Amino acid sequence: MGSLIVSMSMSLDGFVAGANAGPDNGLGDGGEVLHSWLNAGNIDPTSYRPERGVNARIFDEMLTTGAVVVDRHTFEWADEWGGDHHDGVPVFVVTRTPPAVSAYEIVSYVDDPVTAIDRAKAAAGERDVMMHGVGAVRDAMRAGAVDEFSIALVPVLLGRGRRLFDEGDTAAFELTRAEQGEGVLHLRYRVRR
Amino acid sequence: MGSLIVSMSMSLDGFVAGANAGPDNGLGDGGEVLHSWLNAGNIDPTSYRPERGVNARIFDEMLTTGAVVVDRHTFEWADEWGGDHHDGVPVFVVTRTPPAVSAYEIVSYVDDPVTAIDRAKAAAGERDVMMHGVGAVRDAMRAGAVDEFSIALVPVLLGRGRRLFDEGDTAAFELTRAEQGEGVLHLRYRVRR
Repeated sequence: MGSLIVSMSMSLDGFVAGANAGPDNGLGDGGEVLHSWLNAGNIDPTSYRPERGVNARIFDEMLTTGAVVVDRHTFEWADEWGGDHHDGVPVFVVTRTPPAVSAYEIVSYVDDPVTAIDRAKAAAGERDVMMHGVGAVRDAMRAGAVDEFSIALVPVLLGRGRRLFDEGDTAAFELTRAEQGEGVLHLRYRVRR
Repeated sequence: MGSLIVSMSMSLDGFVAGANAGPDNGLGDGGEVLHSWLNAGNIDPTSYRPERGVNARIFDEMLTTGAVVVDRHTFEWADEWGGDHHDGVPVFVVTRTPPAVSAYEIVSYVDDPVTAIDRAKAAAGERDVMMHGVGAVRDAMRAGAVDEFSIALVPVLLGRGRRLFDEGDTAAFELTRAEQGEGVLHLRYRVRR
């Protein structure tokens, strides 16, 4: 069975979105800079894939995951990725109030984060599961369900916004990889149990 | 003239000390882990120098600085480093209320952070100046006086404590170096003007 990997871009001062994040402002004020590494150098306009280098390799690695778990805010503020995060893998949206019907066949709404993770892992089989969104991450951290963090550390201070790590949460990690891409440092951590 | 380099150990969630930091608890609750990289592997018991590897090299690099600027809390909570941070270089302590007399010839108390930095740079000559302590860092950041950050990024979440970067401060950096030592990732950033 694969690992549950949190995949997020974070500023050096710990924010994954700027202030005032909302439906029409998914990354918050000034937060677009967190995704600028996806556009550094040239990208393929049809896939958003960076064309070369470390950033392309990390992008490709993310797309080898076999399922996605996300909180509802992040899912909706990202315009539901048009119903397909990548390659048609199943998406599990954690929400306390699931809608009666999903607009997309591959998108399931689940009211319990642990159940969402279990279903995603089963669906992914041998492949890893990608997790997005601080709401989902906080639930999963408290459930002890996160295996790894893949953090794109962006060399800016945003000053305000939504933090990846919640006040009060403590943990110990092992750094398993640090690679410099254009405009970003890609870090990979394994959570110590 | 040298650069002003902030040198701090920071948890992945942004803390440079745990909660309840104070005179007898300089690194705060659980904060000793931030300095554990200084003790990874063997150290020379007379100098605290890590004996080998990247950590030793980074340690040695810190000691090539020609002056130190520190805020008074950090200075006092570190037991004033016995009056000598390293090699007898001058220490400039930023405090609103300088004592009439300094207990150490090489320690000067200065009531204005910019003046402290100017005096330290003049004293260091061609060498860089090391800065310690979030109080000093915040003043210096607001004055636009910080040239570089040397951050020992420790793979833990402390959950609470004192943050290196203040809420509301925004900035853009350039990552100039990332090196893995035992139990720590050494990052070097240049502040973009």
